[in-house]
Amino acid sequence: VRAIEPREFSLIRRFVAVFDPPAPPRGPGDDCAVLPGSRWDTCVTVDALVEGVHFTRRHFRFEDIGHKALAVNLSDLAAMGARPRWFLCALAIPKQLGTGPVMAMARGMSALARKHRMALVGGNVSKAAQLSITITAAGTVRRGRALTRQGARSGDRLFVSGTLGDARLALSLWRRGQRTTAAARQVRPTPRVELGQLSIPYARAAIDLSDGLAQDLAQMCRASRLGAQVDIERLPVSAELRRRAGSARRAAKWALAGGEDYELLIAVPPNRCAAFERACARSGEQVREVGVITRTPSVVFSFGGHAIPAPLGYDHLA
Amino acid sequence: VRAIEPREFSLIRRFVAVFDPPAPPRGPGDDCAVLPGSRWDTCVTVDALVEGVHFTRRHFRFEDIGHKALAVNLSDLAAMGARPRWFLCALAIPKQLGTGPVMAMARGMSALARKHRMALVGGNVSKAAQLSITITAAGTVRRGRALTRQGARSGDRLFVSGTLGDARLALSLWRRGQRTTAAARQVRPTPRVELGQLSIPYARAAIDLSDGLAQDLAQMCRASRLGAQVDIERLPVSAELRRRAGSARRAAKWALAGGEDYELLIAVPPNRCAAFERACARSGEQVREVGVITRTPSVVFSFGGHAIPAPLGYDHLA
Repeated sequence: VRAIEPREFSLIRRFVAVFDPPAPPRGPGDDCAVLPGSRWDTCVTVDALVEGVHFTRRHFRFEDIGHKALAVNLSDLAAMGARPRWFLCALAIPKQLGTGPVMAMARGMSALARKHRMALVGGNVSKAAQLSITITAAGTVRRGRALTRQGARSGDRLFVSGTLGDARLALSLWRRGQRTTAAARQVRPTPRVELGQLSIPYARAAIDLSDGLAQDLAQMCRASRLGAQVDIERLPVSAELRRRAGSARRAAKWALAGGEDYELLIAVPPNRCAAFERACARSGEQVREVGVITRTPSVVFSFGGHAIPAPLGYDHLA
Repeated sequence: VRAIEPREFSLIRRFVAVFDPPAPPRGPGDDCAVLPGSRWDTCVTVDALVEGVHFTRRHFRFEDIGHKALAVNLSDLAAMGARPRWFLCALAIPKQLGTGPVMAMARGMSALARKHRMALVGGNVSKAAQLSITITAAGTVRRGRALTRQGARSGDRLFVSGTLGDARLALSLWRRGQRTTAAARQVRPTPRVELGQLSIPYARAAIDLSDGLAQDLAQMCRASRLGAQVDIERLPVSAELRRRAGSARRAAKWALAGGEDYELLIAVPPNRCAAFERACARSGEQVREVGVITRTPSVVFSFGGHAIPAPLGYDHLA
């Protein structure tokens, strides 16, 4: 799972502090860096998939690995509202891996790239003990219009796309040796690229949900120096998650902190919510209002009208 | 060593063929991809340093690893004549690696970044069994002016910067347990960033020497659909290489096929050679003329007036 540990957050902060701060409007700390252009800004991001950490050959076909390596980067572009343009692919391959698996990864990646009209413009191949794919992806957005994590204001409504917790359910069922339709959410996540672009005229802030809603919402709140209130009963969960999680408590926990959803969390001011929801309905994008941004700088989850403690993942960042 | 095997070249070609060809002027196949802008083109490249493949902790300090990870990317930007702008850093770190080593890598990288006024704009951290650093670097060049591998013409003179073979000498002396001043060329290569930019008004083509002159020259010839003739006696080698290689034959072999020189090979038309050499002298850039581009599409190395067979590395590409 891709959950980031507290040590990694502090490591990233300390690593970045060694460098001179960049001139561009946004450097490290958002889903993408935003590099200013004359009419278009370029959003760039890098993400790696490592065997044994982010995938296993037992549950992923090589096509899936190729798909997911690009998908997680597209999700970062989606969170900025960027239109995907190009990517670079750095492969680290064990000596004994044949050409067949590499070509299968290329096919999985290529199908997704084609869907988003994205060009492979370069890359690198290294030997390594462990199979990994590191992709750098770039997209464009009209100058100054990129959706960052930090634009939210008190009173903004919080929307979540798709359903949450399915990727985590798949991991759990795999461990118990069970087959599941949720597996598709784990091995072939769908980045919400169109939704991100659609959101630009309505939204004030957005983030992609890779580490679980609780953690990613906390990131948005911290960046915006605000808090949030989320109604757990309103979280969008699939019928399969509700049925197979074992308990309502566990379903809620996975929806909040399971990770790898690759959905979007979008903050929309109240007076634009109706128009935003209409635009989503017209484009077949499923979104649900789950909470609100608050002035108090803490995140409160409510269930049946009662505030409950922040679930696993959240207190790492408190 | 970073020598690319024939299997890797064919793998890259086959991998790239799975994707739609990109719209930008240059996609995969050069030192960088060139992405067109209104006044400036952006050159982007990605390169990885993997423990046990590209470095060992025995011979590299963590500062060196950070330096080299960025330097090899700067060398690709140099080969395009690009001015470095920004980079992304993806770290894959074993669990047991402490914060100290990561900070040391950051310091080595940061010192080089500062020298070239380059901003760290983003990155990624993953767990992995093997330490590796994958850097994506970008630079800019005036529109349409990037130096590619494919612009050479018959009669162009070939220039090489610095000295060749020292990085390979260091590997050999390490194996024999000997200390060497050439080690600095292996652990802290100097990318020829200023020389690359200086070359733009004079040169027709350029490539950086990462896989050895023989192999990289063959790449330039293939991209330009031409051949070349190189005088081995004119290759720039250090006094240390001449003294410690064991034989003149081995010194020549390492200069031609040792790899990891991170010098530039530059093709300059005859009527601009004098001005190019004057410009280099003014800027303190050491270059030496070593051969000429020919119409016959093969690479010939001459020694004492006799043509000799292409050394190891070259026939992989024939």
